[in-house]
Amino acid sequence: MSIIAIYPGTFDPITNGHLDLIARAAKLFEKVIVAVAVNAGKAPLFSLQERVHLAGEAVSAYENVKVIGFDNLLVDCARQHGASVILRGLRAVSDFEYEFQMAGMNRNLAPELETIFLTPPEKYTFISSSVIKAIAELNGDISSFVPDCVFQQLFQKFKTR
Amino acid sequence: MSIIAIYPGTFDPITNGHLDLIARAAKLFEKVIVAVAVNAGKAPLFSLQERVHLAGEAVSAYENVKVIGFDNLLVDCARQHGASVILRGLRAVSDFEYEFQMAGMNRNLAPELETIFLTPPEKYTFISSSVIKAIAELNGDISSFVPDCVFQQLFQKFKTR
Amino acid sequence: MSIIAIYPGTFDPITNGHLDLIARAAKLFEKVIVAVAVNAGKAPLFSLQERVHLAGEAVSAYENVKVIGFDNLLVDCARQHGASVILRGLRAVSDFEYEFQMAGMNRNLAPELETIFLTPPEKYTFISSSVIKAIAELNGDISSFVPDCVFQQLFQKFKTR
Amino acid sequence: MSIIAIYPGTFDPITNGHLDLIARAAKLFEKVIVAVAVNAGKAPLFSLQERVHLAGEAVSAYENVKVIGFDNLLVDCARQHGASVILRGLRAVSDFEYEFQMAGMNRNLAPELETIFLTPPEKYTFISSSVIKAIAELNGDISSFVPDCVFQQLFQKFKTR
Amino acid sequence: MSIIAIYPGTFDPITNGHLDLIARAAKLFEKVIVAVAVNAGKAPLFSLQERVHLAGEAVSAYENVKVIGFDNLLVDCARQHGASVILRGLRAVSDFEYEFQMAGMNRNLAPELETIFLTPPEKYTFISSSVIKAIAELNGDISSFVPDCVFQQLFQKFKTR
Amino acid sequence: MSIIAIYPGTFDPITNGHLDLIARAAKLFEKVIVAVAVNAGKAPLFSLQERVHLAGEAVSAYENVKVIGFDNLLVDCARQHGASVILRGLRAVSDFEYEFQMAGMNRNLAPELETIFLTPPEKYTFISSSVIKAIAELNGDISSFVPDCVFQQLFQKFKTR
Repeated sequence: MSIIAIYPGTFDPITNGHLDLIARAAKLFEKVIVAVAVNAGKAPLFSLQERVHLAGEAVSAYENVKVIGFDNLLVDCARQHGASVILRGLRAVSDFEYEFQMAGMNRNLAPELETIFLTPPEKYTFISSSVIKAIAELNGDISSFVPDCVFQQLFQKFKTR
Repeated sequence: MSIIAIYPGTFDPITNGHLDLIARAAKLFEKVIVAVAVNAGKAPLFSLQERVHLAGEAVSAYENVKVIGFDNLLVDCARQHGASVILRGLRAVSDFEYEFQMAGMNRNLAPELETIFLTPPEKYTFISSSVIKAIAELNGDISSFVPDCVFQQLFQKFKTR
Repeated sequence: MSIIAIYPGTFDPITNGHLDLIARAAKLFEKVIVAVAVNAGKAPLFSLQERVHLAGEAVSAYENVKVIGFDNLLVDCARQHGASVILRGLRAVSDFEYEFQMAGMNRNLAPELETIFLTPPEKYTFISSSVIKAIAELNGDISSFVPDCVFQQLFQKFKTR
Repeated sequence: MSIIAIYPGTFDPITNGHLDLIARAAKLFEKVIVAVAVNAGKAPLFSLQERVHLAGEAVSAYENVKVIGFDNLLVDCARQHGASVILRGLRAVSDFEYEFQMAGMNRNLAPELETIFLTPPEKYTFISSSVIKAIAELNGDISSFVPDCVFQQLFQKFKTR
Repeated sequence: MSIIAIYPGTFDPITNGHLDLIARAAKLFEKVIVAVAVNAGKAPLFSLQERVHLAGEAVSAYENVKVIGFDNLLVDCARQHGASVILRGLRAVSDFEYEFQMAGMNRNLAPELETIFLTPPEKYTFISSSVIKAIAELNGDISSFVPDCVFQQLFQKFKTR
Repeated sequence: MSIIAIYPGTFDPITNGHLDLIARAAKLFEKVIVAVAVNAGKAPLFSLQERVHLAGEAVSAYENVKVIGFDNLLVDCARQHGASVILRGLRAVSDFEYEFQMAGMNRNLAPELETIFLTPPEKYTFISSSVIKAIAELNGDISSFVPDCVFQQLFQKFKTR
C-alpha cells in the first residue's frame, strides 16, 4: 500500500524525540510529511521559516521524508498533500487526553483521515521542545536532546537576546 | 510498502469496537492478523477455539484480514508471521498507561517491532468485552455492540449456564 | 421537582464515605434509593442480606432514604423504582474513567436516566470498602471510617474466620 | 424539592456541549442559572456582554433557565441567587482533576453548596470553546458544534479581524 | 547521614501547603533549602525579593530551613548549595506527570541528585498559589490557606492595584 | 540525622527496578528495611520465605539494607522496627493514585510516619514483577530485568510446573 503520513507540530525546535518518531514512521509509510504549524498565537522562539529550515536539515538523510510549513487547518493541509494518516507521538497521559480530543475533532472534520499514535523509547519520554528551550536559556547542556544544527541555533538565539 | 500488522487481544468475545479498528487498519496495512491470545489465566468465557471462530466469522468480509490463535509470547508470534507492526486500540487513560508499559516491554524484547495505536470513534469508547458480558448476563440488550454471530452465541452461553 | 435518585454499589460494607454522599444527596432529591448489588462474581465478604441490613441501619435517620438489594441490570432496577437519576461518587481519576464508561453505557441502555457525580470531602478521599477490610483483617483501627454497626460486624467477621 | 442550580463558566462562546448539559439540568432542577464569568485575565474573544447575549439567545427555549454575568467569587454569586447546587461538566480526566480541586475549594468557602458533575454524551466529548475558536479562525466548518446564533457571530468576528 | 535537601518553586506566594511540606522535610533532612525561582517568564504577582522575604518570614521558626532566590538551572543551584536531594510535593495526577518529566530531565542533567516526592495531607490537596490569588483578588477569605504575613501582603497587593 | 526507612512490597520476585530504588535509598537513609508482605490473598508465585531469601541475596552488597517478612499492618511493622519513613516507587499515573490513597490511609493510622516517593530511571518504567512473570512463563528473555538469583529461580519455577 502507498500511504502518505503527515506529522504535524510546532517543532520549536525539532528534537531528537521528534527525529526518533520520524525515523520509525519512515519505515512504515511510503512518504512522511513533517508539517510545521505557524502557531502565531503561541509566539514561537523560532520563526516558521527557521523551524522549517531546521527540521529540513535534521531529516535530510531520509529520502521519503519532506518538511513543509502550513497555516491552514490540519485536515485541509493533509488533503492538499494526499495524506491519509495523521501521525502523533504520545509521551504521557496528559498528551493522550489532548490528542484524543484532537483525533476526535479531526475525524469529525475529515472522516477519511486516520490518526495514528506512536510512543517514544523511554529515554525520550522527558524531552519536549519547551523543556529544552528552558534549559538552554539557563545554559544547561542540551546537546544530547537535539540535532547538531538545532544545538548551534539555540545557542545563538539565547546569546543574542 | 508491504507491512503486515498484528492485532493481539483476548477477544472474549470480539465486539463492534474491535471490528471498527480492524476495518480501519485493513485500509492502512497490506495484511492484518487478528491474534487471539489463549489467556488461560483469565478464565475466558469462550474457549480459544470459539473466540477464533467468532472473530473469523466477524471479519470474513475483509480479504486482507486473517484470524489466528496463539499461546506464546506476542513478539515471537509476530515474528513467526512476519509482522512488523503491533496494533492496539486506546479508549481511555488507563488503557494508555498499560499499553505504554507493554509497548516499552515489547520494544525491549523485539526492537524491530513497532507498536501503533488507534483510537475508536466516540460511540465505541464505552464498549469493552467485559462490560458487554456483564450486561448480557443480566439480559441487557447488547445487539448494537457486537456482531450478529457473537450476539447469538452470548445468548446461548448464558442461557445454558 | 420530585426526582428519585438511585445510588448503586456493592456496599461491602457501607462506609462513612458512602454515608456522607447519601446525607448530601438526601438534601437534593425527593427520595434516595441505596441499591445494593448482588455482585456474586466478586465474592463479597458480607452476604447481600447482611449488606442491605447494615446499610439500612446506617441510614435509618434519613426519612427519604431507603435501601434495597438488586440482582438485575442497574437501568432496569432504576426504572422499576421510578428513579431518573443515578448517583455516583468520584474520589480519584481511576474512578472517573470507569464511571465515565459506565455512564456512557447506561445512557445508551436508558437515555432517560441521568448519571450525576458527587465528590467526597477531602477526609474521605482515601476510604474505600476494600482498604477498610484489609486494615480490619490485620487488626488496624477502622472505627473512624465506618458506622458503629459495621464496626461491630467487621470485628465479628474476622474473629470467627 | 425546589433546588436552584448554578452553571458557571466562561462560555466564550456557548457550545452545543454546554447546551446539552443545560437541557439535562433543566429537567432535574427547579431553576438553572447559567453564570458567565468575566474572566478578564483570560482575554476572551467575546466581551462579557456578548457572551451573556449569545448564551441567552441559545437557551431562550427553556423556561426555567436564565443567564447572568458575574465578576465576583462564584460562591458569593451562588448565594446571591439562592443556588444550592453548582453544576459542572466533566469530559476528560484533566477536567476532573481541576474540577475536583475547585469543588474542594468551594466546599471550604461555602460548605452549604454542593457541586454536582454531569458527563456529556460521547459525541460532545471532543468539543470545547477553545478548539471551536481555533477551527473557526482557520475557516473550518463548526456548524455542528455551536448553536446558530454563535455560528453567525464567530464568522463575523474572524472576518472583521 | 547529613543530607541537604532543596525545595524549589515559584512560591508566589508561599502557602500553608508549602509550609506543611517544609515542616515534614525539616524532620527528615539535616538542612532544607527553600529555593525561590525567578520565573520571570510567568510574570509573578510578587517580585523575587518579596517572595523570598515572605517565605523567609514564614519558615523563621525552623532552625534548619533557609530561603534563597535563584535564577540559574535548578541542578546548578542544588550543586552550589551542596544539596543531594530535590524535594517536590505531589497533589494530583497532573502534578505527577509534570514532576515525573522534570525528575527525568534533572536525573539526566545531574545523575547524583535524587528527586523525592511528598504528598500533602488531604486538607491541603486543593490549595495552590494560583487558586489562592484568584480567590483573594475577588475578596474571598483565604486566611486559612496562607501564613499571616502572606495574608496581609496579598490584601495590600490587590487593594493598591 | 539517623532515619530508618522501610520499603514495603510483595517482591514476587524482586526486580532490577526494586534494586535501583534500594540502591538510591541506601545513600539517603541510615538504614533501609525491605519489608516483604505475606499477601496471602494474592496467591504469590514465590512463598514468603522464598521472596525474603531472593531479596536478601539481591541486596547482600548493601551494608545498611536488611530484608524482613511481615504479616501485620504496615504501620505496625514500621513502628516495631523504628522506621519513620515509608518508601515507595512511582512508575505511572495509576501507581500514583493507589499510592496516594495508601499514603493518606497510613498517615491517618500513624501520623508520625512519612511516606516518600522515588521515581525510577526511564529504563525501568515498564518493569513490574507481574509483567516479568508473564514473560518468563512464555520463555521470554527476562535476564536484563531481574538479578541473577531471581533469573535462575524463575526458570526453575516454570520448568517444574
